[in-house]
Amino acid sequence: MGWRRGRKGKSRQGGYRAAIPPAAYIELRSHLAQIDDLGRARAVLSWDERTMMPPGGAPGRAEQLATLSGLLHERLVSDDLARLLDQLRPYEETLPYDSDEASMIRITRREHQRAQRVPSELKVEMARAGSIAEHAWKEARKQSDFEVLLPHLGKIVELKRRYVECFDDAGHPYEPLLDDFEPGMTLVETERLIGALKTSIVPLATAIAERADTVDDSCLHGRFPAATQRSLAISMLCDLPIEADFFRLDESAHPFATSFSNTDVRIATRYSEDYLAGSLFSTLHEFGHALYDSGVSAALERSALGRPASLGVHESQSRIWENFIGRSLPFWQHFYPRVQDTFPDHFGGVDLEHFHRAVNKVQRSLIRTEADEFTYNLHVILRYELEREILEGSLTLVDLPEAWKARVKSYLDLDVPSDSQGVLQDVHWAEGAFGYFPTYSFGNIIAGQIWEVLRRSLVDLDDQIARGDFSQLREWLREHVHRHGRKFTSAEMIQRLVGGPIDVDPYIRYLRAKAEELYGLS
Amino acid sequence: MGWRRGRKGKSRQGGYRAAIPPAAYIELRSHLAQIDDLGRARAVLSWDERTMMPPGGAPGRAEQLATLSGLLHERLVSDDLARLLDQLRPYEETLPYDSDEASMIRITRREHQRAQRVPSELKVEMARAGSIAEHAWKEARKQSDFEVLLPHLGKIVELKRRYVECFDDAGHPYEPLLDDFEPGMTLVETERLIGALKTSIVPLATAIAERADTVDDSCLHGRFPAATQRSLAISMLCDLPIEADFFRLDESAHPFATSFSNTDVRIATRYSEDYLAGSLFSTLHEFGHALYDSGVSAALERSALGRPASLGVHESQSRIWENFIGRSLPFWQHFYPRVQDTFPDHFGGVDLEHFHRAVNKVQRSLIRTEADEFTYNLHVILRYELEREILEGSLTLVDLPEAWKARVKSYLDLDVPSDSQGVLQDVHWAEGAFGYFPTYSFGNIIAGQIWEVLRRSLVDLDDQIARGDFSQLREWLREHVHRHGRKFTSAEMIQRLVGGPIDVDPYIRYLRAKAEELYGLS
Repeated sequence: MGWRRGRKGKSRQGGYRAAIPPAAYIELRSHLAQIDDLGRARAVLSWDERTMMPPGGAPGRAEQLATLSGLLHERLVSDDLARLLDQLRPYEETLPYDSDEASMIRITRREHQRAQRVPSELKVEMARAGSIAEHAWKEARKQSDFEVLLPHLGKIVELKRRYVECFDDAGHPYEPLLDDFEPGMTLVETERLIGALKTSIVPLATAIAERADTVDDSCLHGRFPAATQRSLAISMLCDLPIEADFFRLDESAHPFATSFSNTDVRIATRYSEDYLAGSLFSTLHEFGHALYDSGVSAALERSALGRPASLGVHESQSRIWENFIGRSLPFWQHFYPRVQDTFPDHFGGVDLEHFHRAVNKVQRSLIRTEADEFTYNLHVILRYELEREILEGSLTLVDLPEAWKARVKSYLDLDVPSDSQGVLQDVHWAEGAFGYFPTYSFGNIIAGQIWEVLRRSLVDLDDQIARGDFSQLREWLREHVHRHGRKFTSAEMIQRLVGGPIDVDPYIRYLRAKAEELYGLS
Repeated sequence: MGWRRGRKGKSRQGGYRAAIPPAAYIELRSHLAQIDDLGRARAVLSWDERTMMPPGGAPGRAEQLATLSGLLHERLVSDDLARLLDQLRPYEETLPYDSDEASMIRITRREHQRAQRVPSELKVEMARAGSIAEHAWKEARKQSDFEVLLPHLGKIVELKRRYVECFDDAGHPYEPLLDDFEPGMTLVETERLIGALKTSIVPLATAIAERADTVDDSCLHGRFPAATQRSLAISMLCDLPIEADFFRLDESAHPFATSFSNTDVRIATRYSEDYLAGSLFSTLHEFGHALYDSGVSAALERSALGRPASLGVHESQSRIWENFIGRSLPFWQHFYPRVQDTFPDHFGGVDLEHFHRAVNKVQRSLIRTEADEFTYNLHVILRYELEREILEGSLTLVDLPEAWKARVKSYLDLDVPSDSQGVLQDVHWAEGAFGYFPTYSFGNIIAGQIWEVLRRSLVDLDDQIARGDFSQLREWLREHVHRHGRKFTSAEMIQRLVGGPIDVDPYIRYLRAKAEELYGLS
């Protein structure tokens, strides 16, 4: 073997001094760079598909994406990679767990082994079934008829079961699915977190909803031309801590963020011309994702670590910007004057406090993506419970719409008038995303923990935000979250940050404080 | 081997009946589909780079493009492909030359063998040197100092010589370079065509230039806001024969067209706010390219034949739309009213004939991309002569700027005041495009031949165009040019169309007729 044994040691400065990496490590990096390039190329094609592509592009694009995915998968499961990982094991054992090199080998091994367990044929079949079911879902939603989707969803679930069987050491059929989105997360841990969240949120949401009718958010409704909303969104982004040369803002049916390198991130938002808050907060939400993407250490670019840790951690960053910061009074102290300048007819007579209450109005509603901060998690919890029951076999698909309705009645006290406003409201199950929903709540919970530590570190944060100075905030997030990329699981990251496990209490404390501030609830 | 021997035969309808293709042919198609997908993915990334990408994206994008190019090259030179081509030789021999299957095998073999001759290291070195020289060119042009580019250009030419040596059966060092852009084209043939062009064009351009001062094109100069020009360009494109769902129009520093499938073509144009003709004719030019791309037979998609035949044939299509159609009186009979409606202050008092003469004004100028129809080829001829002399060794790079000036004086009777308006005016040599320039003239020549046949077929073409009816025109171009994709070389295509070789006379006849119509020259 062409590498020298690494030496564990301390440099004179007291920090860890990495040994000269062996040739196999250099080879690993080059292999990973190619995988990452393929992933980024795929991301460019997807971004184009969602923001730019004329309708005629769809069939060709599906082929191109499938080919790139196939090549990426080939490289991830390749014997070359397996050989490198074997060769690097002794080197890895000489290194601290949190060094770039050990993390690179550990995370690559994890992803290689997971990819290897699943036969390519099954992956292709899952992709095809997801694509067919997605079309069926559109039709089903149009007709508001779950029956149209039912056979396709049956196929999806059947394939998910076969997928789960590839992980024969899993404790529960739900766990391998969860692990795809939130590495290292167990069902026991999920139950603990979602359970605690539910115990606190259900009564809190009920109590607030009873008082929220007094909030007047009519100023957010009216005529807001898309082009003017876009100018406002750009103007906000230019004041937020991201270089103008490193991003662009586009429009898409569903807001999203994606990145092609640390210095090329793309934000896509949506403009409802009759409701201003939609684009404001989806832009802030996606900005939070984009800032995380762009904050990963440059040393980790083009590698297995050059991406965010998990969907949960990713969502924590979007939620911090959308809610913790974006729905705070200091934030609008800085930005509200330009909202007034942009739409003087709507906001000339609306003062800052009124606007701040309006963007924080709580309202139990049927649609998750329109839900406020207090009721949002209830939507997630009900999906999580239903999908777990489906996989366990205790709920059959034919009974899903009724189960949905019952759960909505129980948690939100609302009647679901139709499948399109119920079980068919979003595409995620149809596209095969089981085990995905809880990451939204993990994001909120993790955001609560990060926010609490962050506020202790930056004691005058409110003043900074009110001045439009986000520089310390960005540095803090970069230092404690962003720069690590995929090095740590969400649990490891939180452990490093707070010295304990992922925990709902800070998030609940944040919500309670807000409930008190806005609604006088104690 | 897993395939049945194909049978040559006639169907009852008298046409060729393809034998059932052997398994190796199916395998070949699937191999080629992957290569094509990689090429299209690379095209999406390049398009994004030139139209959308924020500046921060540059370093990452270079890596992503290099990786895709590397993977594409690997597949093109692969032993698997060589084996398939060997296995398919007996099958190929049973098939007519112009069948899809025989053409697929023939063209793939050609591209495989050419790719195999050049070591990957040399390709990488050429790409790197081109990228460095491109940056040096920008600096050199800014300083208008050829010395800044000289060492980099020296490196480029040295690498070109090494490249040429890979083709040890080539008759002349220029030929393998030419062949990259115009498959099958020889130096003898190029000399014949360029020589004949020069003999006719130099005196014609001189004679016209003496009369052209009487043409008033001041209406084309003024203030034309980019957004309004864009609306006009979109409105024109919507009347041209391409489905609205199959294209989009964007902006870039250098106009171009690219395609990601037959039903997803992208046109990029440029708006000079002080000169209207720039965007009008570059949009028409790029539309001509885009229409060709989108007209390739669907049966050839995702294969070695799913692209246009050569740069020359490609350019013939852009020139037909830009000049033969786009600078004709019938075309503006249809479109000029909307130019007047869009810019009433500029064109309210300018009649159709005046406008038509203005967009056809001939003017000897220093910059190729601004040249009119009559002087354009002189720019191409001088570059072709200079680059051939460089490769032959009869012109040294240090003498290039002076040689350029002398040639411009001789062909265009102009003095070149600076390198930036002379040898440094475009990037193509710096990026390594030697053997590329003649394809512009091939395009004009081929366009002349196609146009003559086309007009004989569609006798009332002028009326159709004046009515804005381009449907028969599109069908004719599709049937005789577009649908064949890369099946035939330019010479083969012309042979099929006119029963003879590529020939300059029709193009010269077209120019002379136009000179007579516009300037009374006989």
